Amino acid sequence: MTELPEDLRAVVDGSAFYRWSGIRVADADPGAICLELDLDDHHRNIQGFAHGGVLATLADAAMGLSVRSALEPGRRHVTVEMGMHYLRPVTTGTITASGRAIRVGTEIAYAEAVVTDAAGRDLARASGTYSVTKPRG
Amino acid sequence: MTELPEDLRAVVDGSAFYRWSGIRVADADPGAICLELDLDDHHRNIQGFAHGGVLATLADAAMGLSVRSALEPGRRHVTVEMGMHYLRPVTTGTITASGRAIRVGTEIAYAEAVVTDAAGRDLARASGTYSVTKPRG
Amino acid sequence: MTELPEDLRAVVDGSAFYRWSGIRVADADPGAICLELDLDDHHRNIQGFAHGGVLATLADAAMGLSVRSALEPGRRHVTVEMGMHYLRPVTTGTITASGRAIRVGTEIAYAEAVVTDAAGRDLARASGTYSVTKPRG
Amino acid sequence: MTELPEDLRAVVDGSAFYRWSGIRVADADPGAICLELDLDDHHRNIQGFAHGGVLATLADAAMGLSVRSALEPGRRHVTVEMGMHYLRPVTTGTITASGRAIRVGTEIAYAEAVVTDAAGRDLARASGTYSVTKPRG
Repeated sequence: MTELPEDLRAVVDGSAFYRWSGIRVADADPGAICLELDLDDHHRNIQGFAHGGVLATLADAAMGLSVRSALEPGRRHVTVEMGMHYLRPVTTGTITASGRAIRVGTEIAYAEAVVTDAAGRDLARASGTYSVTKPRG
Repeated sequence: MTELPEDLRAVVDGSAFYRWSGIRVADADPGAICLELDLDDHHRNIQGFAHGGVLATLADAAMGLSVRSALEPGRRHVTVEMGMHYLRPVTTGTITASGRAIRVGTEIAYAEAVVTDAAGRDLARASGTYSVTKPRG
Repeated sequence: MTELPEDLRAVVDGSAFYRWSGIRVADADPGAICLELDLDDHHRNIQGFAHGGVLATLADAAMGLSVRSALEPGRRHVTVEMGMHYLRPVTTGTITASGRAIRVGTEIAYAEAVVTDAAGRDLARASGTYSVTKPRG
Repeated sequence: MTELPEDLRAVVDGSAFYRWSGIRVADADPGAICLELDLDDHHRNIQGFAHGGVLATLADAAMGLSVRSALEPGRRHVTVEMGMHYLRPVTTGTITASGRAIRVGTEIAYAEAVVTDAAGRDLARASGTYSVTKPRG
């Protein structure tokens, strides 16, 4: 695993959210973050498929962190909107979200993510708009 | 709480997902479902706000169940796509997602949800497309 | 028709886009704009239905103008993202888009629109995020 | 230009919509369609930028035709939903939308498009869900 910026590592390591959700950082570069999640019983809906919200959480985290990793230290991001398209159901195994900051402006950033299963097949494709705080003058 | 249809109650009560996520049914009518979640530490990101994915999970569940509750017993729904617009951050308290099936066709359904805080203010507005199985001939 | 603010009237009256597209203002209040379009041959796809892009153009214009009409004179808006859900095909008649600014912040605004046919039935439901320039200090 | 399937050529050549909108086919392969548009006065909003609805129309057409071109002759497509993210304003020149059918199922298809300017820079990124009629039994 690539070294995460200090700022990002603090986000993930100190976070009850990441422990609860089971999401971990698999790889990180400035503007591109790869997150992983091992699917467990509690991630599945009654039909036995991973819940859409679980994939949305993984994708939003990957997009948000990809934006954050492209910002100078101290700048922050907030999700303005995000959308998911589900292409295939998944029941088990490790799923991966590769987030990429496509465009980072002074106020607004745009990112995309692809969620894949262990065989590399697309499960979902995501896009999101993030509000970013200004660089320090 | 209104009586849930048997089918829906089975979805929620028997579900490790609903226990893990903390989501519960507050009210239910055919085509309209209201879900609640008490925000806890593990729902919050490092900035202390409820994670966007948590609100997306709540909204997707409310929309999906609102579609399901409008279908004849035995028909099922799968999320095709869903989108979230975040209007206000929230840190604590009970949040509510009111899902409504706007249009249910033979193959595709469309639903919307509004996520509000304890004071009734909009936190997020959601929309989603669901694939539904055909009525039994 | 309600009096349009001067600024908005200039947008619409002086615009080759509005003449070409056939879009006209039916009603206007601060934060809520109603636009109309008489469907013509060139708005229809080969199947004879109004093209999805025509409805998207009408909805984006209604949402953008609803945001603009809620801003102090001199502030401007730019579309950041917009989404359409199509509920019913339409072939002929006058269609209407009612746009509403749901939330207008210092940097970002969120709006929704409903496109209806002459009988008042929903044809499409739209949502959009707009970047707005800051109020003059 | 690659030979368009007969079915698709009929869509474009016989269409008042394509003449009115100024959209033409630049390239076509099964599942991937490239459309072009020369920006004119009537495509621009009052600020002088191409209207968001014009880019949405171009992107929806590119995605829809990319889905159509991946279907057996006689099957049809209808837009269920589509979304646009705008990355850069554009004022003049020829703009291009490259649509790609990402997944085509028996009932639902998913496509994406990128709209670029003459210099190849991203102007907008689009995604859409299409309902497709079943293959003939």
